[in-house]
Amino acid sequence: MSRPIAVIGGTGQEGMGLAFRWAQAGETVIIGSRDAMRALAAATKIKERIGTHAKVSGQTNAAACAATDLIVLTVPFETQSALLTQLKSSIKPGSIVIDATVPLASSVGGKAVRTLGVWQGSAAQQAAELLPKEVAVVAAFHNLSSELLNADDPVDCDVIVCSDHTDAIPVVQGLAAKIPGVRALSGGRLENARIVEQITAVLIGMNIRHKGHSGIRITGLPDSAYKTSKG
Amino acid sequence: MSRPIAVIGGTGQEGMGLAFRWAQAGETVIIGSRDAMRALAAATKIKERIGTHAKVSGQTNAAACAATDLIVLTVPFETQSALLTQLKSSIKPGSIVIDATVPLASSVGGKAVRTLGVWQGSAAQQAAELLPKEVAVVAAFHNLSSELLNADDPVDCDVIVCSDHTDAIPVVQGLAAKIPGVRALSGGRLENARIVEQITAVLIGMNIRHKGHSGIRITGLPDSAYKTSKG
Repeated sequence: MSRPIAVIGGTGQEGMGLAFRWAQAGETVIIGSRDAMRALAAATKIKERIGTHAKVSGQTNAAACAATDLIVLTVPFETQSALLTQLKSSIKPGSIVIDATVPLASSVGGKAVRTLGVWQGSAAQQAAELLPKEVAVVAAFHNLSSELLNADDPVDCDVIVCSDHTDAIPVVQGLAAKIPGVRALSGGRLENARIVEQITAVLIGMNIRHKGHSGIRITGLPDSAYKTSKG
Repeated sequence: MSRPIAVIGGTGQEGMGLAFRWAQAGETVIIGSRDAMRALAAATKIKERIGTHAKVSGQTNAAACAATDLIVLTVPFETQSALLTQLKSSIKPGSIVIDATVPLASSVGGKAVRTLGVWQGSAAQQAAELLPKEVAVVAAFHNLSSELLNADDPVDCDVIVCSDHTDAIPVVQGLAAKIPGVRALSGGRLENARIVEQITAVLIGMNIRHKGHSGIRITGLPDSAYKTSKG
């Protein structure tokens, strides 16, 4: 039996899209929100779309964290730090926390095509500093278009997974590969999240210029580098 | 008639690969090197490979810059700044200077999977600061594997082109699209080069982990976003 996936900030566009795709793949998903009623409403929306068999529920962010050891953080950068400080006590040692935060300059009233410099190097490294060492922080899912996640077609994008907890990388690759069309590959150490996060700003600029929903593919590696839904 | 392309630092792996591909596409290429004899030897090597009809010659970097208004800089980061200061007087106003420099930490004895912070934001912005305003600095070609450029197969990679000189972007896209397999697209303003340059460090890490020659593709944009050899 696979572990439930808590999607913190799961009522946002990116969180909803991930929750939808994982619920559709048969995973147990707990949508987290500051407001339990909003989380419940989001879960109901996904059930209406997939069917009542969908294993998706809604809870407060803290309750969602406490209910599992596989947590995905999809919140705006400006709320990430305070939220993690608040949720810290609800996150069990040994948990995997997947951080999808992109430090866009829009967090402080700037442009979404620019990023902020984060003292620790990246939003994911900031998360790792805030959480106990016993929590495996993994950076992933930054470059997936929320519009495509919320649509029905396969998502034409690779997911680059960075972590210093090497055991957690294949777990997150497996989670990413549950999304049709996605291939997941290791991006190495957590410090590389600084680059993967920033790619999103370039993609947003391309979306604006060309009215698209861009993503990236990594070419030129052997099949063994990629984890896909096919194997 | 198309303008000659000067490839500064053209005896290096990346420069040789680009020179080879452009000469093969029928372009006139001038390989530049500190040492004119080395430049000539590189040009001869390319001619031996393509045939004597190949329009490729070798000169000093300064002579190569003076001979055209389309200049590609493929040098290690640690030499970029001093070289541009030295070549400045040989570069004509109105020239396009394409900077492919990646500020890898290996420039100062560190790892090639890490980058250095450049005060101006990126190596390309450093180049723009060093050159007169009348020169259009364009960042491109950072993510192309030199191994694949020097091989015979099409290169499975997109080229992201960044510049504040919007007129120069399509010129460089056209140049990129002369390389079989390459699609070229605008990455927006020159400041975005800071992200595109850094992607190379992630790709190098993947190459090391998986013994590959990785590249990137941008997905999810309309055909009009890409310039390819087909149109």
